[in-house]
Amino acid sequence: MAMRAVTFDRQLALDSACPDPVLAENECLVRVHLAGICSTDLQIVKGYMGFTGILGHEFVGTVEEGPDTWKGKRVVGEINCVCRTCHMCTAGLSNHCPNRTVIGIDGRNGCFADRLAIPAANLHEVPENLHDEQAVFAEPLAAAFQVLSQCHIDSRMQVALVGPGRLGLLVAQVLHEQGCRLRVYGRNQDKLQRCEKKGIQATHVDDIREFGAYDVVVDCSGSPSGLRLSLSLVRPRGTLVLKSTYADTAIFEKPRRDAALDSRPDSPAAPQNSDSAEATVNLALAVINEITIVGSRCGPFPEAIHALSRESVEVRSLITRTFPLDQALDAFTAAADRRHVKVLLKM
Amino acid sequence: MAMRAVTFDRQLALDSACPDPVLAENECLVRVHLAGICSTDLQIVKGYMGFTGILGHEFVGTVEEGPDTWKGKRVVGEINCVCRTCHMCTAGLSNHCPNRTVIGIDGRNGCFADRLAIPAANLHEVPENLHDEQAVFAEPLAAAFQVLSQCHIDSRMQVALVGPGRLGLLVAQVLHEQGCRLRVYGRNQDKLQRCEKKGIQATHVDDIREFGAYDVVVDCSGSPSGLRLSLSLVRPRGTLVLKSTYADTAIFEKPRRDAALDSRPDSPAAPQNSDSAEATVNLALAVINEITIVGSRCGPFPEAIHALSRESVEVRSLITRTFPLDQALDAFTAAADRRHVKVLLKM
Repeated sequence: MAMRAVTFDRQLALDSACPDPVLAENECLVRVHLAGICSTDLQIVKGYMGFTGILGHEFVGTVEEGPDTWKGKRVVGEINCVCRTCHMCTAGLSNHCPNRTVIGIDGRNGCFADRLAIPAANLHEVPENLHDEQAVFAEPLAAAFQVLSQCHIDSRMQVALVGPGRLGLLVAQVLHEQGCRLRVYGRNQDKLQRCEKKGIQATHVDDIREFGAYDVVVDCSGSPSGLRLSLSLVRPRGTLVLKSTYADTAIFEKPRRDAALDSRPDSPAAPQNSDSAEATVNLALAVINEITIVGSRCGPFPEAIHALSRESVEVRSLITRTFPLDQALDAFTAAADRRHVKVLLKM
Repeated sequence: MAMRAVTFDRQLALDSACPDPVLAENECLVRVHLAGICSTDLQIVKGYMGFTGILGHEFVGTVEEGPDTWKGKRVVGEINCVCRTCHMCTAGLSNHCPNRTVIGIDGRNGCFADRLAIPAANLHEVPENLHDEQAVFAEPLAAAFQVLSQCHIDSRMQVALVGPGRLGLLVAQVLHEQGCRLRVYGRNQDKLQRCEKKGIQATHVDDIREFGAYDVVVDCSGSPSGLRLSLSLVRPRGTLVLKSTYADTAIFEKPRRDAALDSRPDSPAAPQNSDSAEATVNLALAVINEITIVGSRCGPFPEAIHALSRESVEVRSLITRTFPLDQALDAFTAAADRRHVKVLLKM
């Protein structure tokens, strides 16, 4: 049987006659209802991870084929498909399995398609009271909860979040629920207002005065300039949580040269223009202030599903547009537009 | 009275008629016996911290003026001169006092001179059994012990150290004493052999196979290429301790451009030559592998003095040259030569 799928192989395409997934052992075939476009998808389209295949990793759907215990159930799914036998898996760190494939990101087809093959072990049943429009947020909301798994946050702590985008607005709600003293920093007025509507203090980055003041800063900016800002907000001995992957971020040494060399406008070795100066962060600050930087990726689905279910995290207002799968290319264009928050694909 | 002093004000100089220090309240005047040149001194000479004044922060000496309890005592001293009243000081984090000056580094004259003014509260008495040539290592060894203050290390853990230089060889000994499974990586055969002589496994960086294998990696390389290597050695969910400040390290975004733009040889925005490619580290690795990066600076003097006293850390063999203060400029040249380990100044 053929199906529709959004594929990437140097360029994004809609394939209306893609072969149906072939199930491996212990896998289920899921009919996808709804899928979310995330920043990682946009990065992949720019070349991140060198991925080729069917894109997409945030979904809600129904199991059509697989073990009887799963058949007919409405599900969401974890994205890391792991071996369950290696030293990472047996140590309880299966998200870091070195033999893993990752749905729609690394070595395995994704969910921007009519149907998806996924290991049964990755599935979580969606409670009846959850709408598809909520359940589709389970994966990014789990990633938001991962901040709490890796970093102690309590009501006495001053916490900042930089970058209230599609992931940042989820993380902000998770932090707010934790009862800490939270402030969100961003550039986009609409997104700052979305925070304030939820009772979360929000400030434009041009109005920051609280440098070096926060116990914990969560960087959801996805940009080196945001990362630089985040680092400058952390108090000495505080913690910076990195919640975004950057396709192109690197730590770069600007070579020291004498003044004569420095004045050469055509030198390729050092960033000289104002754009690239904007994009530098001095890592010496992390050493001098003894800051702890914590990389954070995928998180716990049960917490996410529970929070969606009791509506302690509100997600439906974040959906700014839903496109039919046939208009997936337009959906990608919309998702890259900062005026949008969450853009969904409906199968 | 006038004294000799090594000063920096855009250039390094030996001043043979420098005014004697004027003591502030609660300060002691210390006659310096011996002082050590460290990488931070070499960085300052390259412009790091924008420091001007008398250089130097590692010393052993005798108190000539000050409270009776200190007069005549042989001492070493902590380098952060703090207010003891701010929120950092009262929280027990006085090394991060926002009002601090730092001896020979920030806003206060250093110890490459006949005499030094230092708050009495910064002093530690040197036990009688310690030679000056050991005691002069108290400050950098305290910085080495700071790794243990910030990061749990035990005998089951696989630990790597990158960069067995003048600080790295101290950190390596501290880690080795902790009984962990330690391996040191470096480029300089002499320094690798120094590790092996102390029973510490050492491997040339060209022979590395253990990527992603270490629970903890301590980066003492002081270079972005060393930092990149260090990051690649950490296992998923492991810890990277940053033990060096980098005058010029920054996190840099290499902008994505289309192939036509990429081929422009004169583009100033992105590092294109092989040297700068060598100097990049992809921070996405820290997010994907959920690595914790810990900045680490000054450390506990009591632990350092105790370790020197019972000779659990051996330092005298690290002294490759001692210059009289009058030859301080030659001493700086020697200290910058990788064939040397520790270069001292004798007053």
